[in-house]
Amino acid sequence: LGLDPDPARLWPRAVELAGGSGIAPGSPAERAALAISSHCALAIDAAGEHCVAVKLQLACFERLGAPGWAVLAEVSRRARERGLLVIADGKRGDIDVSARAYAQAFFGEAETPFGPVPGLGVDALTVNPLLGAETLEPLAEAARARGGGLFVLVRTSNPGAADLQERSLASGETVSERLAAIVSALQGPGAIGDIGAVVGATAPERLERLRELMPSAPFLLPGVGAQGGRVEELRAAFAPGPAGGLVAVSRAIVEAHRRDGGDPERAAAREAARLRERAWALAA
Amino acid sequence: LGLDPDPARLWPRAVELAGGSGIAPGSPAERAALAISSHCALAIDAAGEHCVAVKLQLACFERLGAPGWAVLAEVSRRARERGLLVIADGKRGDIDVSARAYAQAFFGEAETPFGPVPGLGVDALTVNPLLGAETLEPLAEAARARGGGLFVLVRTSNPGAADLQERSLASGETVSERLAAIVSALQGPGAIGDIGAVVGATAPERLERLRELMPSAPFLLPGVGAQGGRVEELRAAFAPGPAGGLVAVSRAIVEAHRRDGGDPERAAAREAARLRERAWALAA
Repeated sequence: LGLDPDPARLWPRAVELAGGSGIAPGSPAERAALAISSHCALAIDAAGEHCVAVKLQLACFERLGAPGWAVLAEVSRRARERGLLVIADGKRGDIDVSARAYAQAFFGEAETPFGPVPGLGVDALTVNPLLGAETLEPLAEAARARGGGLFVLVRTSNPGAADLQERSLASGETVSERLAAIVSALQGPGAIGDIGAVVGATAPERLERLRELMPSAPFLLPGVGAQGGRVEELRAAFAPGPAGGLVAVSRAIVEAHRRDGGDPERAAAREAARLRERAWALAA
Repeated sequence: LGLDPDPARLWPRAVELAGGSGIAPGSPAERAALAISSHCALAIDAAGEHCVAVKLQLACFERLGAPGWAVLAEVSRRARERGLLVIADGKRGDIDVSARAYAQAFFGEAETPFGPVPGLGVDALTVNPLLGAETLEPLAEAARARGGGLFVLVRTSNPGAADLQERSLASGETVSERLAAIVSALQGPGAIGDIGAVVGATAPERLERLRELMPSAPFLLPGVGAQGGRVEELRAAFAPGPAGGLVAVSRAIVEAHRRDGGDPERAAAREAARLRERAWALAA
């Protein structure tokens, strides 16, 4: 269940719970944060039972500043209480000392003279590998220490992905295939590893080759619905071998009522259930 | 002036201003945030007059959660009051709709049913181009609308940069050179453009070629000091043509007292002044 809350497109009940659009206490940022918190909680309660994880798009929380970051923590807790895994979709990536700071922010805690400050405590973070494998290691280590993992960008779902990721290197492989090799080199042991890969559902023709290069990586598959990807085309992500994929769907679930009518909760639950059936059919 | 505040290595006066390490009101996160705010304010007051901008490493603020994000806004305001430009070093990069959310977070405002919520309002953001030029456009547009700009990662300062950025493409250019072409295609008009490039000071042998490919891009040059780069080796970033570079130095200034002794303020001011002289000598 992808949660990319846009304060201009929230479920009406979430806006009402924040006092409606009339005069009420709190700054616009505080009220918008409250509305986003309610919106995400309602969406989790409606559709969560059909999902295994929430994917939180950090940009959507950051745009509300500190109150947005507080909501991020609340939504993570809510999802965990409902038995869902939490994936922070932040696409972070930085040099060693900064990568360790991100590791504290998402998986660990910061040591301070005033006592430890716990981070967000998510199960997985999406990371950007442009700076090289060395910069992913502190994050992989911190994720592993709490039984979590990473999803490394390998082939993204957007049209511009071709600008760089689809280019051929002199060695013959594409940039994406090189990134897949970085994922495999970082991989933990076991038939299903803890280093996953983001592979867009909008480029299903790439799945077979990428699954071959990363046999034990869980795939995070965004791009179904609003971006044009279809669950039925993702079979190669789920075979051969035990590592499968997480189909990440955001707008097609949370905005299902705009297409199907009816109330947002029921439309979201129905769409999530429908997509789950289709995903399970692939893995069968 | 790079500010990468590590709560375990703050200036002693900043820890005292947050009540010292004994018992005092506030959670560890709130007190650490207060100490980081004081630390950054002291560093800006001590060394800012020798600098043109502050570069804020977002990872270091995010690890304190919502209080850390509030401090980020405070430090930005403080720097601006002192006449410094503010560079948010977040290395963000995401697909279109999420890129627009980051644009709101850093340059614009979010529209909400409760009124507009202003973003951080920085002058520049570091961005990661792995997802392609299309994903940088909403950020470039939002930065331009407020007279700001972007710094696109082209050749980073870390050892692992070679994993991907130094690889040759089948077309003959390296990945970094391809990224430089993306920067040039996004560039605004004028002899000094608003789309800059992050080029590590640790790879000075790459500067001449990258300056040739991006004649009007301001370079952001991290890696001097703790990472081993030397200002004297950066001449090619400043010639030929009017576009120059910003030498980004973090630990070598803020931790100068650990090497030189004396109080942190004076050591930081002295090191910043010394580095400024060297940078000006290059541009002369």
